Amino acid sequence: MGSLKSFVQVPPDSHFPIENLPYGVFKPQPTSAGRPGVAIGNHVLDLSVVASASLFDGPFLKNSDCFNQPNLNKFLELGRPAWKEARATLQKLLSANEPTLRDNASLRSKALVPMDKVQMLLPIAIGDYTDFFSSMHHAKNCGLIFRGPENPINPNWFQLPIAYHGRASSIVISGTDIIRPRGQAHPSGNSPPYFGPSRKLDFELEMAAVVGPGNELGKPIDVNKAADHIFGLVLMNDWSARDIQAWEYVPLGPFLGKSFGTTLSPWIVTLDALDPFACDAPTQNPPPLPYLAEKTSKNYDISLEVHVKPAGQEDSFVITKSNFNHLYWTITQQLAHHTINGCNLRSGDLLGTGTISGPEPESRGCLLELTWNGQNPVSLGGTTRRFLEDGDEVVFTGFSKGNGYTVGFGTCSGKILPSTT
Amino acid sequence: MGSLKSFVQVPPDSHFPIENLPYGVFKPQPTSAGRPGVAIGNHVLDLSVVASASLFDGPFLKNSDCFNQPNLNKFLELGRPAWKEARATLQKLLSANEPTLRDNASLRSKALVPMDKVQMLLPIAIGDYTDFFSSMHHAKNCGLIFRGPENPINPNWFQLPIAYHGRASSIVISGTDIIRPRGQAHPSGNSPPYFGPSRKLDFELEMAAVVGPGNELGKPIDVNKAADHIFGLVLMNDWSARDIQAWEYVPLGPFLGKSFGTTLSPWIVTLDALDPFACDAPTQNPPPLPYLAEKTSKNYDISLEVHVKPAGQEDSFVITKSNFNHLYWTITQQLAHHTINGCNLRSGDLLGTGTISGPEPESRGCLLELTWNGQNPVSLGGTTRRFLEDGDEVVFTGFSKGNGYTVGFGTCSGKILPSTT
Repeated sequence: MGSLKSFVQVPPDSHFPIENLPYGVFKPQPTSAGRPGVAIGNHVLDLSVVASASLFDGPFLKNSDCFNQPNLNKFLELGRPAWKEARATLQKLLSANEPTLRDNASLRSKALVPMDKVQMLLPIAIGDYTDFFSSMHHAKNCGLIFRGPENPINPNWFQLPIAYHGRASSIVISGTDIIRPRGQAHPSGNSPPYFGPSRKLDFELEMAAVVGPGNELGKPIDVNKAADHIFGLVLMNDWSARDIQAWEYVPLGPFLGKSFGTTLSPWIVTLDALDPFACDAPTQNPPPLPYLAEKTSKNYDISLEVHVKPAGQEDSFVITKSNFNHLYWTITQQLAHHTINGCNLRSGDLLGTGTISGPEPESRGCLLELTWNGQNPVSLGGTTRRFLEDGDEVVFTGFSKGNGYTVGFGTCSGKILPSTT
Repeated sequence: MGSLKSFVQVPPDSHFPIENLPYGVFKPQPTSAGRPGVAIGNHVLDLSVVASASLFDGPFLKNSDCFNQPNLNKFLELGRPAWKEARATLQKLLSANEPTLRDNASLRSKALVPMDKVQMLLPIAIGDYTDFFSSMHHAKNCGLIFRGPENPINPNWFQLPIAYHGRASSIVISGTDIIRPRGQAHPSGNSPPYFGPSRKLDFELEMAAVVGPGNELGKPIDVNKAADHIFGLVLMNDWSARDIQAWEYVPLGPFLGKSFGTTLSPWIVTLDALDPFACDAPTQNPPPLPYLAEKTSKNYDISLEVHVKPAGQEDSFVITKSNFNHLYWTITQQLAHHTINGCNLRSGDLLGTGTISGPEPESRGCLLELTWNGQNPVSLGGTTRRFLEDGDEVVFTGFSKGNGYTVGFGTCSGKILPSTT
């Protein structure tokens, strides 16, 4: 892979070399319809143009209209053989020694659009969104904060990947402003609840798996085949209003503390592009029940960073560095568990990992943990934060470093706007 | 209303007189595409035929293709003025003294299809499904069973309509078999969890509101305008695996204990048809916060029954009689609460009420409550049940009795099939 080279110029620090080729949906002009593309350097390759030029000539994609769609769902449904065919076709088409696109100026000008000119859209129509709780460090810190040092992690956590159903309608693309939610919260003791803008607005550093082919209702997916049902990963900010969440979540789980907005990065990095960065998942003790026991239990070495640009400032500051490989439950275990009761997944469904915290205080994935529920403010340049303030901008990034290249996710960003009344 | 009469014959005990006209989606032939219809007596009126004959001639529907769709979402988006226009048009078209359809044999034979010949489909594409917990009797019984007599209801329950996000993909139409889910459960104490088919499979007697026009992200819906965003109601069986649920639900709420299947009745009864059966909702104490305080707080007098036909038997037995008016939180409060944080609803979204239990032991809405978590089996003819067994069929029905007519929901049914391995 390291010896691949594209005729499209790729800056050395780019997240999008020919080894990556992540998929998104974009509008070349504000009035255009959305269409699928892949990122290459500072350009987007328009897949509807590539398809119209009959350059997808393999058996799976030759007669498919999957790239003439407003989202990637139809392509995702086709499964890994089609994904591998697309990847091989595109790596060849973009390679330095392949003349088809390189030497056809007219086609090139239609197919390659400068990234700074396009508008990115949500790449998938999301039928259902599920959010897991798969970092042990996050689970432990939350337990310590809310329940204290005796049994901070519930016994069920070590036996199954805990999850809840999230809200699909309020998932937005990176760059969308987030309006501070209003809601009920409860100070403590016997006082009545108060109502107003959330006082404890937080981010959650997550990634999410995008489901490819789904399953029929009543037919679980075997954990050792689960990877065939996962197209790739995105960065995800599961914005959380901690005061609303704390008051509402017993006994049925998070609801309005989460459903006001969830941000996704625009580029889906495929598992195929991430394969060189696969690593062993942590050993699980107790060993999982047979339906969760994998022959190979994989994580990925993906460095994750959270940058915060405080309101009114020009600079942003890194406040967390974590890594996808801190997850205890793998994405394939998450998917297999999700279907073991017969629940059907559909192409484009989203499985969030939960907040990815590492073992160090600097690798905690949300302000709740970083400030220990607001007790210890974090410093950001000349100012401090317990929770997010209006005007703060939060930017996630994630990347895997290869030999001379970087497979990256770009950014996942959002700015807090004040509550409306 | 009681003086309306249709030229279509309506048997005296029918749920579908001209006062009702509930909406569904049906296939007249197994190979046809689904299309919208309304129920009248033992017939379905095909709205795509009515629209093609240009009989929707009011300002909202004259140029709309909302009845040439595979679901009702586009019609629901149009809002109450269009719904009222459709109702007025259809009540006139079907009335005994209106010749247009009555005297046109060819049109009549195309437009009116015998109900026993059609296949009913899910009437809406459901983007998100939310399930509330709005019966105080149900909340109290669950609290008594799981937490004991001290504070069986959490203090937050009286301040807000508690809810969780449900799974949209596994919602099925009445008549679909339900496969017993497999999963993890935990016996008690320190023993390890076991895995297998659920041993505590249950029904939950619910109704659900179908959302009409939605709202933009960040723009809550005022509680006094919430009724304009609700098209109508359906019966809903929120099948539940109590053993799976009990083990998984702390701290993020129900997940696999619910997501294996949720059954809807095929006919959406409109709030306009239910209006004669509106009644005062219970007084709320403590009084709700201002954003939940309604000028008029309405419930509906809808009688609900659960019939169980035990495996291998010919007869079914009523095991619960409840009423929609037992709800503490109204559907308009549920909807307003759902959006107060800015969460966007979309046309076709579903808001379940939660199990509708009444104050009497005979009005409990699920086996968990009826058998007190399996301790006291219920008698059904010559047999007993703690929870559902393979082959059991559960049928819900609901209706409001008017003066000489019944506005009903038909049935919501499902049969339990054994687990697959």
